[in-house]
Amino acid sequence: MARDRLIYLPLGGAGEIGMNAYVYGYGPEGKERLILVDLGIAFPDMDSTPGVDVILPDISWLLDRLDRVEAVFITHGHEDHVGGVGHLFRKLKTPIHARRFTANLARRKLVEKGQDPNNVITAEAYPAMIDAGPFRVGFLPVSHSIPESAALVIDSPAGRIIHTGDFKIDPSPVVGEPFDADLWAEAAKGGVRALVCDSTNVFSKHEGRSEAEVAPNLKPLVASATGLFVATTFASNVARLRSLAEAGEAAGRSICLMGRAMRRMTEAAVEEGILTDFPRTVSPEEAADIPRENLMLIVTGSQGERRAASAQLSRGKYFGMELKEGDTFLFSSKTIPGNEKDVARIMNNLSEMGVDVVTDADGLYHVSGHANRPDLETVHRLTDPQVVIPMHGEHRHLREHAKLAESLGRVGVVAPNGTMLELSGNAPKVVDHVETGRTYVDGSTLVGQFDGVVRDRIRMALNGLAVVAVMVDDDDEVLEDTWVDLRGLPEVAGNGASLADMMEEHLAGQLARIDTRTAGDDEKLEDLIVKGVRKVAQDEVGKRPEVTVLITRLAAE
Amino acid sequence: MARDRLIYLPLGGAGEIGMNAYVYGYGPEGKERLILVDLGIAFPDMDSTPGVDVILPDISWLLDRLDRVEAVFITHGHEDHVGGVGHLFRKLKTPIHARRFTANLARRKLVEKGQDPNNVITAEAYPAMIDAGPFRVGFLPVSHSIPESAALVIDSPAGRIIHTGDFKIDPSPVVGEPFDADLWAEAAKGGVRALVCDSTNVFSKHEGRSEAEVAPNLKPLVASATGLFVATTFASNVARLRSLAEAGEAAGRSICLMGRAMRRMTEAAVEEGILTDFPRTVSPEEAADIPRENLMLIVTGSQGERRAASAQLSRGKYFGMELKEGDTFLFSSKTIPGNEKDVARIMNNLSEMGVDVVTDADGLYHVSGHANRPDLETVHRLTDPQVVIPMHGEHRHLREHAKLAESLGRVGVVAPNGTMLELSGNAPKVVDHVETGRTYVDGSTLVGQFDGVVRDRIRMALNGLAVVAVMVDDDDEVLEDTWVDLRGLPEVAGNGASLADMMEEHLAGQLARIDTRTAGDDEKLEDLIVKGVRKVAQDEVGKRPEVTVLITRLAAE
Repeated sequence: MARDRLIYLPLGGAGEIGMNAYVYGYGPEGKERLILVDLGIAFPDMDSTPGVDVILPDISWLLDRLDRVEAVFITHGHEDHVGGVGHLFRKLKTPIHARRFTANLARRKLVEKGQDPNNVITAEAYPAMIDAGPFRVGFLPVSHSIPESAALVIDSPAGRIIHTGDFKIDPSPVVGEPFDADLWAEAAKGGVRALVCDSTNVFSKHEGRSEAEVAPNLKPLVASATGLFVATTFASNVARLRSLAEAGEAAGRSICLMGRAMRRMTEAAVEEGILTDFPRTVSPEEAADIPRENLMLIVTGSQGERRAASAQLSRGKYFGMELKEGDTFLFSSKTIPGNEKDVARIMNNLSEMGVDVVTDADGLYHVSGHANRPDLETVHRLTDPQVVIPMHGEHRHLREHAKLAESLGRVGVVAPNGTMLELSGNAPKVVDHVETGRTYVDGSTLVGQFDGVVRDRIRMALNGLAVVAVMVDDDDEVLEDTWVDLRGLPEVAGNGASLADMMEEHLAGQLARIDTRTAGDDEKLEDLIVKGVRKVAQDEVGKRPEVTVLITRLAAE
Repeated sequence: MARDRLIYLPLGGAGEIGMNAYVYGYGPEGKERLILVDLGIAFPDMDSTPGVDVILPDISWLLDRLDRVEAVFITHGHEDHVGGVGHLFRKLKTPIHARRFTANLARRKLVEKGQDPNNVITAEAYPAMIDAGPFRVGFLPVSHSIPESAALVIDSPAGRIIHTGDFKIDPSPVVGEPFDADLWAEAAKGGVRALVCDSTNVFSKHEGRSEAEVAPNLKPLVASATGLFVATTFASNVARLRSLAEAGEAAGRSICLMGRAMRRMTEAAVEEGILTDFPRTVSPEEAADIPRENLMLIVTGSQGERRAASAQLSRGKYFGMELKEGDTFLFSSKTIPGNEKDVARIMNNLSEMGVDVVTDADGLYHVSGHANRPDLETVHRLTDPQVVIPMHGEHRHLREHAKLAESLGRVGVVAPNGTMLELSGNAPKVVDHVETGRTYVDGSTLVGQFDGVVRDRIRMALNGLAVVAVMVDDDDEVLEDTWVDLRGLPEVAGNGASLADMMEEHLAGQLARIDTRTAGDDEKLEDLIVKGVRKVAQDEVGKRPEVTVLITRLAAE
């Protein structure tokens, strides 16, 4: 009989920040029983994924082995960890385990997609353990920037793995559990085969700062403001929402939450008993009647998202609110790389309105939710694993984190998405490379990364498009009235003539000369037309457009 | 006779960082004689300008008054100040004044576009002054991150303006002139009506650092490297190139410059006698034969530009060079906001190769070329102007800089692009708002910002495109074979059927039912088809595509 083995296979999140999805398996080769840790999304951008709504990890590998999947475990409620459950549950049909707050969010996602929310099972915290085939899994509480984050203690016959999820070492996280070093030490004391560890902040050399440091800075800022005070932050950072609201309350301001995510998060936190003493809030309708100097808005959109409350407020009226000179707008957040321009656009709009913008430039109004380098070292020491497997990072983060592990005398393994590691041998070993990638939620369907749909969009955006309609009669003669229609190309060429007209003329000349063999062959005819159109475009406007050719063949009457 | 007045009108650069173009005028209203300071470009991005090559300020206002334009003055050789002269000289036909190094670069741009380089006139430094109609203009040397930067001393009958250009206060800039406070004080001593001042770093609160601080950090870094050492920086930062090359030479490495801009800049600096003792360099061909531990490449592409040397090296072989484990790659640069993802892509590629990436994260290997807030204060004091007009910044920079001026007891005016200020009265006054904007260099033609060309590209990228070809016979009956072709849309709908087929079927049903009045009217027919296609797309794949309809009307034989 084949020897049992313990495997680790990231399908998303290792080699990028986003769409986390990590597989663990135990059993004979090819027959391992599997669990999935996290099922997150990533966000599209115009550069690589125009028109796409949401990006999912490609979990085909797992879907092809559904009969071997025991369960899904979600470490916490951030979109890059739980965002995929709504989209993929229909295919996955596997019980989802999570702690209360996370489970609340996951259930909402299933309901949104018309799935039964009872597929989400609320987990108690470690030392409680959940059986999942050969695995036993415990949710080990850890501090992060959202309530009830957990690391996973994953026991298998080949030993214990600690999968940190996202975390920081915060002794006073304002809302939720402080980092409990004793509990972690206890969880590790029987020996840890592998620490699969968050790498986001491995390049940040100073010790991480506590969420509790923010509130004392917020209070004087809000107290000294004169007009309307608006603050934006990550909606899921319930602790920050509380610190902000308390600063507002202390300054005699009514608190109004704006933006769907803001309401969803506080609702879930209240439902699960995590947020018991949040200051009383007013609705946007009530807020409209409150003098601006007595009002504080806490709004979504800290990353410049165009439809979120921050962007709307920066463009004009939103729910009857309109910002003006003398108001203050606080970004109690950092700008995630890639969002700089969108955030700057909001700041500039606000500046044009005369609104004073306050950012975290001096490190006063935001702290990170991820462990910095010294805190990573602390967790390496605390858990003392045989192997450190960095995750939740781009390749450079994984590599740096693995080097850090090696420098501390442990084995560090860089295992990007698709790398299957065997962890049950003496040393970790790459045993397979699995095809991974991204699946796009595009409108109401799923589109594969390599389907060409998005590639075609990018090409049209870069090159413009010429559409040519041509008719061929039943004698394989091309009729004279070939039509060219242009999109995303200049209408007139350098000489002032219509570009479409010039193409039509050129094609007319070409098509008049071809033989019936070419005219009778769709492929040859299309090829000729594409080349002709591109030649004119290149000569006249210096572009090489995409070309769509519609050939209509008239049947004999 | 109308009273003479002094006006200031930014056409680019005030309200954005990029495409600088500032007009000054003096004379009776509507008859002012004009000069233009700087004529730069901005760079396109996929979000707002897909497919565009270069962005120019829309200088139509100036082109409509060409008979009143005396001259163009270029403060320094950065692309956002000089990059437009090649593209626009054909229209502008006005002498261009610049100091030697800048003039060298400007001449190359004219030559590239087939224009006479003698239109660029080399200027001597202040106290030399150039007559330009009612103006006298002097090039006041100032330190920046490119050789021979100058502020402009602009004299008019209504007083002196100092237009700083880009600058920093650097007592030891490695290459070129140190900031000369005495000279600036001398230039200001007769009184300064307005200081038109760089705002880039107004949010940076610490004092600026000197270029000379970088070299001592570079030397030990290069000395301790073992494999190939590659450094990237802004090609125009000739001082940095020298510091890098000297660090390489000190470590016994041959220096090889890679990338067109790198060679163009050093060539110009050598030609103009600015760079006299640069270490000897080897060609990429020679470099291929040198052991990697004895070689240093200085390459373009610090901002992640996809075709520059850095990106090429991160993707594989480039001029016979291939990076590998043990090599070092230094970003002696900062990442300009918006370029984060492109730069990270290179770093991750390098990480995958096992190359050690060193950045300026700790502030060791780069210094900014712009004056920080305390340095701006110094220049305000030194020149003691009646009015401070912030430029070279987004709106938030301009506003902050104006507030700084006010806090120091001077008048600060926020005047974004298109704001015409009169500076000859007792207080600065907005006298006009001029239509401004951006012109796109797209292939070989110029495209207007509002021509719809780029808007159509963005829409195709976001929504995909359906092309419909329909034929109508001479009795205004729609023929049966309507064709749909899709680009950038999923081929199959959720139910597994072909989306194009479903659209064709839907249209066939619709078109069979219409009367000849609709079929006979292109507009009505098109409208019907667009709606039909969008309905199917919305129902089946949740998208709302762009639609191109080609109607062919068959003539009676």
